[in-house]
Amino acid sequence: MSDQSLTRFSLGHLPLASLLLCAACTSTPVGSAGGDMEVVPDVVLAIHGGAGTILRENMTPEMDQRYRQALTQALEAGYAALEAGGDALDAVEAAIRPMEDSPLFNSGRGAVLNDEGEVELDASIMDGAEGLAGAVAGARTPRHPITLARRVMNESPHVLFAAEGADRFAEAQGIETMEAAWFVTPRRADQLKRMQARDASSTADLARRPVDEKFGTVGCVALDGDGHLAAGTSTGGMARKAFGRVGDSPIIGAGTWAADATCAVSCTGHGEFFIRLAIAHQLHARMLFGDQGLPQAAREAVLEELPALGGSGGCVALGADGTLVAPFTTAGMYRGWVTRNGVVTVRIHGDERR
Amino acid sequence: MSDQSLTRFSLGHLPLASLLLCAACTSTPVGSAGGDMEVVPDVVLAIHGGAGTILRENMTPEMDQRYRQALTQALEAGYAALEAGGDALDAVEAAIRPMEDSPLFNSGRGAVLNDEGEVELDASIMDGAEGLAGAVAGARTPRHPITLARRVMNESPHVLFAAEGADRFAEAQGIETMEAAWFVTPRRADQLKRMQARDASSTADLARRPVDEKFGTVGCVALDGDGHLAAGTSTGGMARKAFGRVGDSPIIGAGTWAADATCAVSCTGHGEFFIRLAIAHQLHARMLFGDQGLPQAAREAVLEELPALGGSGGCVALGADGTLVAPFTTAGMYRGWVTRNGVVTVRIHGDERR
Repeated sequence: MSDQSLTRFSLGHLPLASLLLCAACTSTPVGSAGGDMEVVPDVVLAIHGGAGTILRENMTPEMDQRYRQALTQALEAGYAALEAGGDALDAVEAAIRPMEDSPLFNSGRGAVLNDEGEVELDASIMDGAEGLAGAVAGARTPRHPITLARRVMNESPHVLFAAEGADRFAEAQGIETMEAAWFVTPRRADQLKRMQARDASSTADLARRPVDEKFGTVGCVALDGDGHLAAGTSTGGMARKAFGRVGDSPIIGAGTWAADATCAVSCTGHGEFFIRLAIAHQLHARMLFGDQGLPQAAREAVLEELPALGGSGGCVALGADGTLVAPFTTAGMYRGWVTRNGVVTVRIHGDERR
Repeated sequence: MSDQSLTRFSLGHLPLASLLLCAACTSTPVGSAGGDMEVVPDVVLAIHGGAGTILRENMTPEMDQRYRQALTQALEAGYAALEAGGDALDAVEAAIRPMEDSPLFNSGRGAVLNDEGEVELDASIMDGAEGLAGAVAGARTPRHPITLARRVMNESPHVLFAAEGADRFAEAQGIETMEAAWFVTPRRADQLKRMQARDASSTADLARRPVDEKFGTVGCVALDGDGHLAAGTSTGGMARKAFGRVGDSPIIGAGTWAADATCAVSCTGHGEFFIRLAIAHQLHARMLFGDQGLPQAAREAVLEELPALGGSGGCVALGADGTLVAPFTTAGMYRGWVTRNGVVTVRIHGDERR
C-alpha cells in the first residue's frame, strides 16, 4: 500500500533543501493483540500530535492537508535545529513550539478549555544525556509551555512547578506570556459550549467522547549527532476537565522519559492510565532491566498492558540506535518523523502504516 | 549490637495486646557502596517519617522519645486496621493520618512552610491489587492529605489534582478541611524566620541544610491478609521551597508505587532526584523485568544510583512475600515496622540497623 500521507500535500512550502519526502513506506508494521505499530530505522526526530478516533469520514480534505502541513512544519523546525548543530533538547523544543502555536493541536494556543473556559497547560522535557528534567502543570500564561519546562530544568533546582507557581516562574524567567483570551480559539469555545449543553462533564464516559474532546497532546523525541536523546510533551489536557486535574504529560516517567542508554519517549492518550502504568519509564525499564528491544517493549506496554487496563493512546519512542516505534491503540495518531538523511514522513490514520 | 531504638520508650501507652516490642534485632544489614539497609522478613506494615542528617547530639532524650512514640502510634493504628479486617489501603491510610496530625513530621499539621509562610501539601496512594492511584499536589486545606488522595483514587476518574483544584475537590468530597493557620506550628514559623534571616532560599545549597529544613515526608507500605500491597506518601515538601514546587511525593512512580506482583514503595528525600530516577517504579521494574530480588533492586536504585546522581534519601519497600527493605543514604531515617505476629520495631539512627 502506498504512503497516503504523502499524496495530499504540496512540497512548495518546504524551506529546507535537505528535506526529501518519503515516497515509499519505510516502516515495518508489527502485529499485536491490541493493534500494531510502525517500526522505522534511522530516525533522528519524531513527533506526535495526539491519538484518538480520527476517522477519514470526519476529516475534510482541507483539514487533512492542514494537519499534514502543520506536522511537516514542526518536523522541519526540529530537523533544522539539528542541522544547525543544536542538540536533541534544542530539536525537541523547536519541533514542539510551532505545534503549541497552531490552533490545530491541544497545546498552547488552541488547547482545550476546562469547565471554566480557561486553558491549563502541562508540559515536560527530559534530557537523556544527564537525566535532567523539567515540567509545568496547570500553567495559564506561557505561550510555549515546553520552553518554560526547559527553563525549570535548566534554571531552577526543581523538576515540577504547578499552577500559579508555574506562571510566577514564567514571569521571573522572562518567558513570553500571553493573556488568557489569546489561548482560546473559536473552535475550543464552541466545543466547550456543546459539551456543557449536553452535560459531558469530565466524569462522563470518556470512551464515547470524540477525540478532540479528550486527547491531542503534542510531543517530540530526538537523537542528535552526539548520540544524545531527548523527549518532550505539551498538552492542554482533557476538554472540560475538572479544575486542577493533571494528566500524564507533565509527569516524568508517565508521559515523558529519556535516557541515552535506552530510549526517548513521549506519550499521548488517556493520561490516568499512562500514570498508573508509568508507560514512559516502563519502556526504558523493559529495555534496561529486561533486555527487551524497543519494539517488544513498546508493544507489550502500549499495545497490550494499556488496553488490558482499559486505557487508550499511543506514543513515539526513539531508541539510541535510531529505531523509532509509533504504537497506538486508537484509529489514528497524528505523527511524523525525519530520517537521518532528511526524509520526512507524516501520517494520520492507522491504516497508513500498513 | 542491641536495638537501641527500644531502650528509651515506655510500653505503657501501647493499646494493643497483640503488639509485642522487638527486643532483639530481627533485621539483616546489607552492605553497599552508598550505605546499607535493613532487610526484615515477615513484615506486614512499615512506615517512614523522613530521612536526613538526624544526629544523636542534636536530639534530646525527650525528642527522641516523642519521635519513637509517634512512630509507634502510627504503626499501631495501621496494624489495628489490618487486625480489624481492613485491607492494605486501609492500613496505609490509618498509619499516615496520625503522622499528618503530629507536629513532629513534615506533613499535614506541622508541615514546613513555603516562602510565603503557607503549607502546600502533597500526597499520593496506590493500590497494588488493581493498580489504581490517587494524588494531590499543593493542597492547602485538607487535614489529612492522604485521605484526599484516596478519594481522588476512588471518587474521581483522575489520578492527580493540583493546587486549588485539590482543595476544591476536598470541599466537594466533604473531606475535613482546616484553616491555613491550623497547619502552622511555632516550630515551622520560627524555622522560616531563621531561614529568611540567613537567606536560605530554595536555590541555596540543599546539601548543607539541616534535615528539618528539607525532608521529613511520611509514608507507609502494607501487605494485607489477601496478599494485596498498598503504598502511600504525604509531605509538606521542602521548607522555604519556591511557590508551587512539586516534589516526588505526589508523583506515582517517583515517590509512591504498589503492585501485588512485586512490591509497595514509599520514598523520602530530595524529591527531584527521585523523580529523575523514577525510584519507586524502578524498584518494581527491576523485580518484574530484571528478575532482581527486592534487596538487590533497592540497593542498586537507592544506595547506588541515587547518590551517584547527587541525591540523598531513602524508602521503605515491602515485597509481596513480606520482605521489608529500608535503605537510606542519610545518617538516619525515622522508620518502623510490624511483623506478621505483631512485633513492633521503631528506629531513627543509621547505626541502629547494625
